[in-house]
Amino acid sequence: MIKIAAVKEIYENYRDHMRRVADIKAALALMQWDQETYMPVKGTEFRARQVATLSEMAHEMITTDKLGSWLESLEGSSSLTETERKNISLTREDYLKQKKYPPAFVRKMSETVSRSFNAWNQAKKESRFELFENELAELILLKKEETELLGYQKHPYNALMDEYEKGCTVDLIDKVFGNMLPKLRNILEKIQQASPPDDRFLFKSFDKKKQWDLGMEVIAELGFDFEAGRQDLSTHPFSTSFNKFDVRITTRIDENDFSSMLFSCIHETGHSLYEQGLPESEYGLPSGEYASLGIHESQSRLWENHVGRSRSFWKFHYPRVLQIFPDTFQEITEEKFYRAVNKIKPSLIRTESDELTYHFHVMIRYEIEKMLIQGDLKTADIPACWNEQYKKWLDVDVPDDRQGCLQDVHWSHGSFGYFPTYSLGSFYAAQFFASAVKSDPLLNSKMEKGATGGLLLWLRQRIHGSGRIWNSEEICKFATGETLNVQYFLDYLLDKYGKIYEF
Amino acid sequence: MIKIAAVKEIYENYRDHMRRVADIKAALALMQWDQETYMPVKGTEFRARQVATLSEMAHEMITTDKLGSWLESLEGSSSLTETERKNISLTREDYLKQKKYPPAFVRKMSETVSRSFNAWNQAKKESRFELFENELAELILLKKEETELLGYQKHPYNALMDEYEKGCTVDLIDKVFGNMLPKLRNILEKIQQASPPDDRFLFKSFDKKKQWDLGMEVIAELGFDFEAGRQDLSTHPFSTSFNKFDVRITTRIDENDFSSMLFSCIHETGHSLYEQGLPESEYGLPSGEYASLGIHESQSRLWENHVGRSRSFWKFHYPRVLQIFPDTFQEITEEKFYRAVNKIKPSLIRTESDELTYHFHVMIRYEIEKMLIQGDLKTADIPACWNEQYKKWLDVDVPDDRQGCLQDVHWSHGSFGYFPTYSLGSFYAAQFFASAVKSDPLLNSKMEKGATGGLLLWLRQRIHGSGRIWNSEEICKFATGETLNVQYFLDYLLDKYGKIYEF
Repeated sequence: MIKIAAVKEIYENYRDHMRRVADIKAALALMQWDQETYMPVKGTEFRARQVATLSEMAHEMITTDKLGSWLESLEGSSSLTETERKNISLTREDYLKQKKYPPAFVRKMSETVSRSFNAWNQAKKESRFELFENELAELILLKKEETELLGYQKHPYNALMDEYEKGCTVDLIDKVFGNMLPKLRNILEKIQQASPPDDRFLFKSFDKKKQWDLGMEVIAELGFDFEAGRQDLSTHPFSTSFNKFDVRITTRIDENDFSSMLFSCIHETGHSLYEQGLPESEYGLPSGEYASLGIHESQSRLWENHVGRSRSFWKFHYPRVLQIFPDTFQEITEEKFYRAVNKIKPSLIRTESDELTYHFHVMIRYEIEKMLIQGDLKTADIPACWNEQYKKWLDVDVPDDRQGCLQDVHWSHGSFGYFPTYSLGSFYAAQFFASAVKSDPLLNSKMEKGATGGLLLWLRQRIHGSGRIWNSEEICKFATGETLNVQYFLDYLLDKYGKIYEF
Repeated sequence: MIKIAAVKEIYENYRDHMRRVADIKAALALMQWDQETYMPVKGTEFRARQVATLSEMAHEMITTDKLGSWLESLEGSSSLTETERKNISLTREDYLKQKKYPPAFVRKMSETVSRSFNAWNQAKKESRFELFENELAELILLKKEETELLGYQKHPYNALMDEYEKGCTVDLIDKVFGNMLPKLRNILEKIQQASPPDDRFLFKSFDKKKQWDLGMEVIAELGFDFEAGRQDLSTHPFSTSFNKFDVRITTRIDENDFSSMLFSCIHETGHSLYEQGLPESEYGLPSGEYASLGIHESQSRLWENHVGRSRSFWKFHYPRVLQIFPDTFQEITEEKFYRAVNKIKPSLIRTESDELTYHFHVMIRYEIEKMLIQGDLKTADIPACWNEQYKKWLDVDVPDDRQGCLQDVHWSHGSFGYFPTYSLGSFYAAQFFASAVKSDPLLNSKMEKGATGGLLLWLRQRIHGSGRIWNSEEICKFATGETLNVQYFLDYLLDKYGKIYEF
């Protein structure tokens, strides 16, 4: 037994160490943010080595024996608070997991990812999957090796999903998709029998500066703290955080697509409101980190879809849109506008798809990944399989690899097991929003007046505050009274699109 | 004797280690750049701790015993090239110097600087020196302690100047100023007897966007590589570098002062052209670093004054200025414009002063610093001493501390011994420029056509390429055939201002 004073001292050492790791990670995040926003082109090569050096240092710090022995001596100590004990056990899990990677494996993975990312870039540019095939095959071999290093139950793919969404399994996702997709298919068929809303006016010309200003205004209205964050431009929108007082989001502007920037702004704002809501005092500790990718995505989806694509939201914001772009929208009623931004249409590109067909995109990737990791699909057969699945589920013909299996960066990074978290995010979002409405039945009518502070407070109290002390399912239970229940998402779709498409 | 193969291997270890240190320093520089340009206000506190963590890591790496033993075993090795030997001996000097600082001293200095910077900020805001007095006194005590830790010959201030300009001594600066100031005084008197150029038109209203665009154009014309750098806005202009392919400068725009932004752009461009000219392969090693602050400043001053304030430069650029601001300048001839941007007038603020009176500002700070470090002046007496000196040398009355002894940030940072490098930079600049003209007598007439590539090439070959393998005086000798000779600066002033003021 260690004395209480000693426990407190060791915990302090541990806390200080973790905060230093967080400092390095913040520097890394800044370097990556800068690379996507402002870095001059020739800076790429040296930036890559600077990132590599800091990554290595962070990795050394989270696998150092000193940390291991602190964690071992503190594990389960009754002199610690519940949160402290949870921090210790979560950090210990991370530590033991990281220790499973031999340095040679880490180096090989890093080199292979670097090569495969370059190959993917080139392959996508030329729209030729075969230029990516060998590197991807090599990477998949390494990922399989990784599943063996980490260990798993039942399916090797579980080991990979666990990286992004702890406890998430093939059984769970199979069940979720198995239950949901036929129903989504059913809704989609009804939608396709109805006459589609006219959304051509969304693709006229919209001054970029005016779009930007509108986006900034909307972000501010939603509660983004511009004293603790900023928005910039980048090729692909993303959000990142250096600490809760410096959270950054990016967007891109398409002059001929009104929805493109605006919904990306709202989506990233959802991510950033989560980061701005993490507890300051827990910086560097599990209790100060986001819970999982699924929960992170639930926040972006909740704001993007349940708020940003709602009738109530546009009741407040559409007059402003009309004021800014009077010529384009003068003939368009609020109702027509609302229907247009909610148009459902099967398409080729995941990131541009609507909130219903989105999940077919995810499911197809999920099924392919499972097969690849289990060895049931050869890398060379990906394009054919991809195209067949898109025909089967979405009835779209894939014209080339660029718009097909080369569209996403994830595989080239070795991020297998990531996609399912996008769908989980949507499903959690629907459940959270339903629960928030239940706890405040006036929530929608408040939104009509532009007031979303109550919703944000609800999210802060139910979801943001616990860091990753609780896992996704525990958070879900605390916030909504039950674990993940995809019926909320289905009910939401049925209600919303039943009205829009009148079925 | 170590075998050649072993020597090569140890040198590789050393090189790799130094490059990793450079990676961390680059991350630090990025964090500081971001803080001055884009960071949201609430980010300050966590950024400070992130910077502190990385600074400590860098410091640990440059004082680690492992490095010490590599350096010891390689020192003077005949299996190394001359540059390699020089790198080893310079790094060893740094290493031994850093080792002289006890960790407790480093921590105390860092805390004191932090407090004194805050005190200075407040004191400057309220224009009350007494709010800064105690913290400054404490800091000066520490700086004195530092001179004892480092050791020095003759004057403790030598130890401090050596930080910024190796080998620079009180004897040298006393001699330089002693020789120069009476002559500057003499020129100034002649100027004050002549009728001053009218520069009121420079203080009309100038659209900020147009100013920015003009600045960017000028920077590009001077050879700044925008693929290996960028310009942004910040409160105080500065330049920084993460490696030769990512060099960043900043500026600020005063709507009612045409000169303010433009000359700051040219000044910072001078700094950045130096950084963009350092040898890529020497990244992280002394052979890849700038030689000294004096040499750095010589580059900014050369471009700002010898290029940017020259008749030839404006012959090419003034037509463009006329085109951009036709209303303001329509009555102003190129000659009138040239005289206006070269107006000499004693003033209160160093950073806004002209190229002649600038050196009185520096000399006054230098004399005060020497006295403070030697204990010949009490902190409380700084304002009175400052004001008296400004009256004596520049005949200006200091109305308050904000415009007097609180104007510069340097002392609050503990940067004693820094100011003299500003003057040295100007003197080196004049000597370098005279030498460049001697080697290409057509240099000025090329400038009239907007061509400065030959001058840049000359600087690259004579000054930029050797990193800090050579010290300032060695570079000066190589570039000009002789060591520092302030007569070049005096001749330049006499010739230029003799014509402008007709004496």
